Amino acid sequence: MESETKSEIIDATNRVLCEHGYAGLTIKKIADESSMTTAAIHYHFDTKAELLNAYLDDLVEQFKSNITSEATDPRDRLTALLDTVFTSSNPDADGFPVAIMELKSQAPFQEVFRERFLDLDNMMRGVITDIVADGIDEGHFNEIDPNEVARLVTTMINGAHARKVALGEPLDETRRVVEHTLALQLGWHPGSEVVA
Amino acid sequence: MESETKSEIIDATNRVLCEHGYAGLTIKKIADESSMTTAAIHYHFDTKAELLNAYLDDLVEQFKSNITSEATDPRDRLTALLDTVFTSSNPDADGFPVAIMELKSQAPFQEVFRERFLDLDNMMRGVITDIVADGIDEGHFNEIDPNEVARLVTTMINGAHARKVALGEPLDETRRVVEHTLALQLGWHPGSEVVA
Repeated sequence: MESETKSEIIDATNRVLCEHGYAGLTIKKIADESSMTTAAIHYHFDTKAELLNAYLDDLVEQFKSNITSEATDPRDRLTALLDTVFTSSNPDADGFPVAIMELKSQAPFQEVFRERFLDLDNMMRGVITDIVADGIDEGHFNEIDPNEVARLVTTMINGAHARKVALGEPLDETRRVVEHTLALQLGWHPGSEVVA
Repeated sequence: MESETKSEIIDATNRVLCEHGYAGLTIKKIADESSMTTAAIHYHFDTKAELLNAYLDDLVEQFKSNITSEATDPRDRLTALLDTVFTSSNPDADGFPVAIMELKSQAPFQEVFRERFLDLDNMMRGVITDIVADGIDEGHFNEIDPNEVARLVTTMINGAHARKVALGEPLDETRRVVEHTLALQLGWHPGSEVVA
């Protein structure tokens, strides 16, 4: 598939998901949101699950490039990562977290969704582990297991997402708690305020 | 409504939700799972949202009694709370977390769901805040803001729930990270191992 066609279908899928949710997603609506016919979309993706697999795959790639900053100092890389994950960056900001939550609810029944969420999780934990390990090597952070820090931060990000959807709570609330916890663990406050 | 009738409907709702999910929940299926007719259920609950409101209300009450232990020592109360929240206690263990995740996804569209999830969150944070405050007063825990600890633990519980559904990850994985983090914050390890 040409990457332009693919990215047009995926962009249209995102818009339909954000507006109508998982239950309301149809190939017809994706066609309406793009320049493609339903037949053309079906030609590229046999099933809705296959299309959503590609959508999630693209999301993992995008998210990876978003949380990987060009900075070299591990403290700046960590701050940039927190900026990205705790900011609603999707243009359809309200519908997007809900759609992702619905897809997570489907993961027990759709093996490909689960695989993509595992990819996302592994990627995110890998990026955080690398940052923390580099920060320790360079003497900026306390000696602590980088994998544990990555697991903590990632689980807090998952919690923040659920709280945004279920409670309508701004992501900032969780960011503040993550920063305090990191300050205690790393001996460095992501707000750049030195605490240890 | 007699409380027996109400609790029969709510128990049947739980079984249907765990087996068929939110999208598959119908008054007909609840009738099949109970000794009541659909007319009798409709008599008690005008809408599906009203029934689910009562279901969630009941869940908050149950959960509150589950996480409130008879112990008096704050360290035992905290350990009992972690035992409860990080153990799958619902008999239909597989379907239950998925159903709750689906209801969370609906919260932006169903104000009563959001209110019940806010009740659950406030209750849980209140219980944890009290335990931590008591533990500080009695000299078992480091001086730390109890509200911050409550927010951290509650967000980690939300994250653990999402990870169980989306990734199939056992709740224990998050419990371990929470214990390490609490050890650092409180100066007391929930596994009873003194670290500070």
